[in-house]
Parts: sequence; structure tokens; C-alpha cells
Amino acid sequence: MQYKIATLPGDGIGPEIVDQAIKVLKAIGEKYGHSFDFQFALTGAAAIDKVGEPYPDATHEICMAADAVLFGAIGDPKYDNDPKAKVRPEQGLLGMRKKLGLYANIRPVATFPSLIDKSPLKNDRVEGADFVVVRELTGGIYFGQPRGRTEDQKTAFDTCVYSVDEIERILKLAFEYAGKRNKRLTVVDKANVLASSRLWREVSQRMEKDYPEITVDYMFVDNAAMQLIQWPKKFDVMVTENMFGDILSDEASVITGSLGLLPSASVGLHTSVFEPIHGSYPQAAGKNIANPVATILSAAMLLESFNLLDEARKIKDAVNASLDANFVTEDISKEASKSTSEVGDWVADWVK
Amino acid sequence: MQYKIATLPGDGIGPEIVDQAIKVLKAIGEKYGHSFDFQFALTGAAAIDKVGEPYPDATHEICMAADAVLFGAIGDPKYDNDPKAKVRPEQGLLGMRKKLGLYANIRPVATFPSLIDKSPLKNDRVEGADFVVVRELTGGIYFGQPRGRTEDQKTAFDTCVYSVDEIERILKLAFEYAGKRNKRLTVVDKANVLASSRLWREVSQRMEKDYPEITVDYMFVDNAAMQLIQWPKKFDVMVTENMFGDILSDEASVITGSLGLLPSASVGLHTSVFEPIHGSYPQAAGKNIANPVATILSAAMLLESFNLLDEARKIKDAVNASLDANFVTEDISKEASKSTSEVGDWVADWVK
Ligand SMILES: CC(C)[C@H](C(=O)O)[C@@H](O)C(=O)O
Ligand SMILES: CC(C)[C@H](C(=O)O)[C@@H](O)C(=O)O
Repeated sequence: MQYKIATLPGDGIGPEIVDQAIKVLKAIGEKYGHSFDFQFALTGAAAIDKVGEPYPDATHEICMAADAVLFGAIGDPKYDNDPKAKVRPEQGLLGMRKKLGLYANIRPVATFPSLIDKSPLKNDRVEGADFVVVRELTGGIYFGQPRGRTEDQKTAFDTCVYSVDEIERILKLAFEYAGKRNKRLTVVDKANVLASSRLWREVSQRMEKDYPEITVDYMFVDNAAMQLIQWPKKFDVMVTENMFGDILSDEASVITGSLGLLPSASVGLHTSVFEPIHGSYPQAAGKNIANPVATILSAAMLLESFNLLDEARKIKDAVNASLDANFVTEDISKEASKSTSEVGDWVADWVK
Repeated sequence: MQYKIATLPGDGIGPEIVDQAIKVLKAIGEKYGHSFDFQFALTGAAAIDKVGEPYPDATHEICMAADAVLFGAIGDPKYDNDPKAKVRPEQGLLGMRKKLGLYANIRPVATFPSLIDKSPLKNDRVEGADFVVVRELTGGIYFGQPRGRTEDQKTAFDTCVYSVDEIERILKLAFEYAGKRNKRLTVVDKANVLASSRLWREVSQRMEKDYPEITVDYMFVDNAAMQLIQWPKKFDVMVTENMFGDILSDEASVITGSLGLLPSASVGLHTSVFEPIHGSYPQAAGKNIANPVATILSAAMLLESFNLLDEARKIKDAVNASLDANFVTEDISKEASKSTSEVGDWVADWVK
């Protein structure tokens, strides 16, 4: 089979880590007889610098025509502390999410036994944690209108909006995901304060009846922020709205001590996007030190979306082998300190 | 001196723990020659059950006439899973915050050396952590209008609003607080997405110039949620808006492993409210097992607000002595397992 993969390296370490995922996908292609056609496109600060926009139309067209999108990272510190900047790299990301209809961000969080000592949590608290955070990605306060300033510039406002359709769509995905796992779903909201959360809870309570095999519990977001640290093992699938998901999925990502290893998938109406959950890590850009594993595992999720399950499994096995062999970048082991491209080569070779 | 203390035990374990704080305040009164006049008033589910409202006018009048408010906890599970309930205990809390103008919630987070093994974090990560979360408490998405449903009930919305005045007021308090501590302030927002956050950042960047001795840094909320777990020791004072503060202050409260020990103060325009940060813990209500220390330490913060610093110090010393003596409730030590009232008696006796 031939697959078209829109490839958006983005900013910071993005290009380096995406290169490694490409290597690994090529190795899979050779071994299993698939051909991957990588179509490169600009995004983020890199795109602003070249064409003045963070998600140019040309990039969007390439994504729309692709079978999947492989994404690096975006963000450049020069834009962060200028609240009045007209164009920001993040707008590219948000524009892409909206235009591709990427309504669900899926982040599996699992501990790697060999890395448990790197977790900030006590080993016995985190060992064996294995759950998935499902975040709604195209609604809520990220996109709601109206937003902006009053004319006198003295007041600013944002709007959090959710429709029943948006809520049903993401909950359906979450219920089904839980069905394929341990059949437990935690719906996180702030129904004791927010009207939008009360609608989430209503819709979810109605949908529960269609999934009698799933055990559902409801948790306020502040409580979820605590439980994730205290008892991460008790979660199976957690689903929540966009802003809460932004916070909780990042919180969840550090408890295993393996931020550099965690992939994500953003499921879309038109195509889906696969990317590491860590950021563009500008301090490391160009140094060939960043950990490429999260991006390589994102490529594995990409293959799963094509239903190439053996191929995806092969990548995961290769990554586990590299960890067992302690063939890792400096974030995992100062002593080992392999470079980004060395790790990419090692994993690609193992696949072959 | 004579002080009027509005006393709102609330729901669940509220009455039991407030009783212990009263004991300790009475002991302080005897020793230092103050008289505390405790004026009891209804709030929360307890108030709904008796008079149909969670923050009755009579309670508000008692608070307005008081020098300070001592608060237990509110919340009752029977209201949590009914998204259509007309009156909810939390509305009482929110009503009280708004009517008393409680614009700043202050939560000191510190590790207790004897409890470090109870922390979910590895000891070396958390040992010595000592910071304060300042949360804006009367603005943002908690109170912004419009909020509710569209007529067809198919869409729900909430509004996050902040004015320059509200932002300046809370930041001023946070800058001054940092000035009395280690002179570092972390302003947490989501300025890469929200218009309201961009206004926060603008106001803060302007105010920085008036506090040249304070080192300020800006952090996105998702990043803050990670840093709190990874490097809690690097924070001194963190300030943020209402919803982010709800999530981050609860997250912060569990990293020390001493949720049952942490007090809070809510600084108001009319009076201030002192309460434990934990909830109403309904499963333990009436069992005389809940930890009263957070409420007792809230009473110490209350004394600080009267500028009774020696008296406050005495309470803290008494609590530390009880911990050193392992005279603690079951949440701290299953073996010790003293009751709520035994701990209250011990601390009050030590004070005398
Ligand atoms: C960069 C930012 C707009 C983005 C978000 O808030 O969604 C990021 O934090 C993420 O989680 O992908
Ligand atoms: C009960 C609820 C409304 C409240 C809040 O969200 O502020 C609580 O979580 C708190 O932090 O005091």
C-alpha cells in the first residue's frame, strides 16, 4: 500500500525528532512492503518567518490530501512574552485543529518499568499506572465567541461554549475507547460551577445507558488534579473538555517521568494528526540531543490508525528494546547520552 | 481585646473540626487575655436543609458584623450528581465569596518533615518545598455573565471576564506577599490562548516596574501543572485567576502529603474567611476521625489577620509539637489513630 503522510516538523526540536520518526517509518515500509510518501509542509514560527502565517493554506491543503499528519512541535519563546503580538505560532496549531476538525486528543500514559526511578512520584504510587486522557480539542473556551476586549480596553473576556453534538461526539469516542480497555470511564468537569459542565454531565448521564458495560464516574476537575498525583493507577480512560484537558493531560504526562516518550493522536473529521506531547524545547534545538521516542511512538499510533497493527507493534517493541539496552538520550540517562539521530538509527535498524 | 468571630461549621466533618479550632482559640484567649465571641451561623447543605438557602441573609449579616469568619467545609454528595438541582451548597460558598468581596484566596503549602513519607512525591523532590498559591476568587468564569443555555437547550456557555481593576487588586496583594517572602512571583495564565490571560499579563508586566525587588516569571497553566509536580521547590508565590487557581491550588495541596494540615485565608473587602482547604469529607462525618489540624492552623491565620502574631505562632508550635509527639489522627498514622477531639484537646492543652 502507498500512504501519503503530511509531515509538519514545526519549530525548535521538531525537525530533528520528526526525521527520526521518518527513518523508522521507512524501515517499516521496507520490511512490510508499504510505501510512505512524506509531503513536507510549514507550520508554527517557522511558517511565520517564511510566509507570514503559522498554518498557511498550502499546508492545510497538503494535510487535507494526506492519509495522516505527522507533526513535530511548535512554539518559539520570542512570541511568548509579547501579549500584543499579532501572529503567534500557537494560532497555527489552533487553526489546524479547527480546520481539520481534530475534535479528540488522545494521550496514553503508561509507566516504563526501566524508567520508574525518574518519576517524580514514589515508585509504588506510579508503578503500573496505565491510562488514557481524552481531551476535547476544538471547542470550549479555546474557540468560543465572543472573546476580546471592551472598547475602553479595561475588560477582557473569553467564552466557553459547548453544544450537545460536540459533547456527544467526544464522549462516544471515550466510551468506545474505554470499551476496548478496562471499561472504566472518568468524566471530568466542574458541574458545581459551570453551565457548560452541567450540560456535559447531563449528556454523559444519558449516554451511560447505551454503554451498560462501562463503569462511569464523575469527578470535579480540582479533585481530578489531586487524584492523578495521589492514585494514578485508578484511572483507565479520562475524558474532559478542552481547557481542563490541556491542564490535566500535561499534569498526567509528567507523573511517569517519561515526558520524552509519550505520543499522542488527534482524531479529526478530515484526517488525524500524530505528535509527541512535549513541546518545541527551543533550548535544545539543533543540538541533536532531544529524545525522539515520543515522535517515533506517535508514528506507531499513526500506523494503528491505518490498521497496520503488526507494524505498530514492531515499532513499540523496537522502542522497548532501545530502553532495555539503555540506548537512550541524555534526558533518560546522563551516562548513556546517545544523540537524537543515534537513537533514531538504532530503532530503525532494530525494525529491519 | 474582644473579637467577634462568625462561625460557620457547614457540612460533613465541618462541625467537628470547627469545634477543635474553637477550643484552641479559647485556650489562646485564656492565656493571652483576649475574648472571642463565636457567633454561629448556617451555611451549605445544612442551611439548605433548615432554611432553603445555602448562604442565608442572616448568615451574611453575622459575617459582615464580625472581625473574621471561621469556616468549616461545605458540600453534600446528594447534590453532586443532579445537574438540574435548583439550589446547591456550593452556591452558598460562591455567594459568600461575592458578597463579602473575598477576592484573594491564600494557601500556604509547606512540607512537614515528619510527614514527608506520606507525600506521593519522592522525598527529595518535595522536601523543603515552601510556597504560597494566591488565587483570584471573585472573578473569571466563576461569575462572568452571560452564562447558561440557549433557548433550545442544545448549547451551554460560560463567560470568563476580568477587568484591569480586578487584576491589579489581586496582583498587588501577590507582589506584596512575595516581597515579605523570597521575592519571587510566578504569574500563571494561558496568554497564548485567552484574551483574559493576555490582559493579566499586560497588567502584570506594567506592575513589575513598581516592584523592582521582585523577580517575576510567567508560566502557562499547563506548564505550571507539570512544574508543581516536578520541581515544587522552585516556587515562592504563585498567583493566578480563579479557575486555574482552583485546579492548581488543589494539585499543590496534595504534593506534601498533608492535605489534612493545610489552612487557607480568603481576604475580603468586608471581612476575611479562614478555612481548611480540604472538603466536607462526608464519609467521615460524625465519626470523630477527621483531622482538625488544617482548621486549627486556619485559626492561626485568623489571629495573624488580627496582628496577634505571638498567639498565632503559639498555635503553630502546638501543632508541630502534636506532630512530633505523633499525637495524630488516622489519616496521618494508622497506629496512632487519635480522634478529632483528642487532637483538639491536646493542642488546646499545649497552648495553655
Ligand atoms: C500551544 C497551546 C495553544 C496548546 C494548547 O493549549 O492546546 C498546547 O498547550 C497543547 O496542549 O497542545
Ligand atoms: C465547591 C467549589 C465551588 C469550590 C470552588 O471551585 O471554588 C471548591 O472547589 C474550592 O476550591 O473552594
